[in-house]
Amino acid sequence: MEVRSLEKAASILRSFTAKAPEWGVRDLAAHLSLARATTHAYLSSLAAAGFLRRTSKGRYRLSWNLAELGAELTASLPWFTPARTALADLALATNSLGFLCVLEDARVVCINRALGDPDAPPDALQTDFVLPANATIAGKILYAHADLPPPTFVKFTPSTITTLDEWQGELARVRQQGFAHAVEEWISGYCALGVPLVHDGDVVAAIGVQLPTSRFLSRERSLLARVRRAAEQAVRSRPRPTS
Amino acid sequence: MEVRSLEKAASILRSFTAKAPEWGVRDLAAHLSLARATTHAYLSSLAAAGFLRRTSKGRYRLSWNLAELGAELTASLPWFTPARTALADLALATNSLGFLCVLEDARVVCINRALGDPDAPPDALQTDFVLPANATIAGKILYAHADLPPPTFVKFTPSTITTLDEWQGELARVRQQGFAHAVEEWISGYCALGVPLVHDGDVVAAIGVQLPTSRFLSRERSLLARVRRAAEQAVRSRPRPTS
Repeated sequence: MEVRSLEKAASILRSFTAKAPEWGVRDLAAHLSLARATTHAYLSSLAAAGFLRRTSKGRYRLSWNLAELGAELTASLPWFTPARTALADLALATNSLGFLCVLEDARVVCINRALGDPDAPPDALQTDFVLPANATIAGKILYAHADLPPPTFVKFTPSTITTLDEWQGELARVRQQGFAHAVEEWISGYCALGVPLVHDGDVVAAIGVQLPTSRFLSRERSLLARVRRAAEQAVRSRPRPTS
Repeated sequence: MEVRSLEKAASILRSFTAKAPEWGVRDLAAHLSLARATTHAYLSSLAAAGFLRRTSKGRYRLSWNLAELGAELTASLPWFTPARTALADLALATNSLGFLCVLEDARVVCINRALGDPDAPPDALQTDFVLPANATIAGKILYAHADLPPPTFVKFTPSTITTLDEWQGELARVRQQGFAHAVEEWISGYCALGVPLVHDGDVVAAIGVQLPTSRFLSRERSLLARVRRAAEQAVRSRPRPTS
């Protein structure tokens, strides 16, 4: 199994979105700057393997098998779909990068991102979703509401939290204020702000936005209001219990 | 891009379910009767390409990229998730094969299936979801509520509808009764029963069950009640509008 082939297959699948759900060989080859023969070979292989399906017009769409795989993944997270919708709205409304993170084996895993600029190129499939707990607001929020030993204090910028004292003080603040923010603690030139996502009384995720420092500092208060609204929207719009 | 490799990759992905969300190399090799080295090579390639991710314990889980692909696919179908849940309940309650079908370019496409016997082996990824309209209850239901020319009358069994007169009579009956049934019209030894799934006043899908004739004939009335309940459940449990 060649990794490069699989990666190309993944980038092809990623071209199929809600806005562009159907592709023909010619259009997709142009879109991805691939040779038409290569594109054709990948599309037919992906269809034969059940990742894509051919329409009656000889074009291609994502196979419903992928919806099934996605559903298996989110089956235990009833809040995922509404949170994803709220995140997309949030990113668009604030023109920023929205993110949704959960804790998994004491690691902060980013499970969804949303790009606020509708004209920006879509991100490629990511292979690593683990974020540094000590340098991200998702880390602060999720650790503040879990009973865990402190994370590893890797230094990313001059502002990164690197001592236990700072860390514990910050978590106490996050618990008290109900939100977390970070000014260039992970990536120079970027700030972030987020709140816990609460489902049935438990903090299940962190939802927030990241944006350039220049656009962050003057807008922090209005951003916080908007992020809080997204967290409430995600909870309010969850499906009612069935029967 | 080798089709066989992609198919193996697909069957590996399909092993990751809500009930078995995490696999190590050794367990998965045993589960799929594959060599351990082969399994290892596929798992690392799938992780490198972003289909799977490695946990901190060196095991594997589906990547959230797949949830995103699935979400792109179902983004325009707000009724999909509740319908999928209702279908799973229906199949289990009736010990049958449940199915959810939609119309696409005048073709009947099965977009989800559920196996009512929890101990049955999971189905492999399917490469062809198009069903014959004239021989299936999904075809009858979806054609009955659409404005389409008649389908091709391929004969599968002695009971298959093969004339325009029969077909038009059957569609009128389906519209009047609000359900469709079929006794060995597609596959000898199997019967099916289903109802329309209505969302915001439109017939968006057909939901139903297929089971052996021996278990069907005596239970048709109770099956119909159960299938109707599933259709109502799917509609009742859809998320409330957001803001």
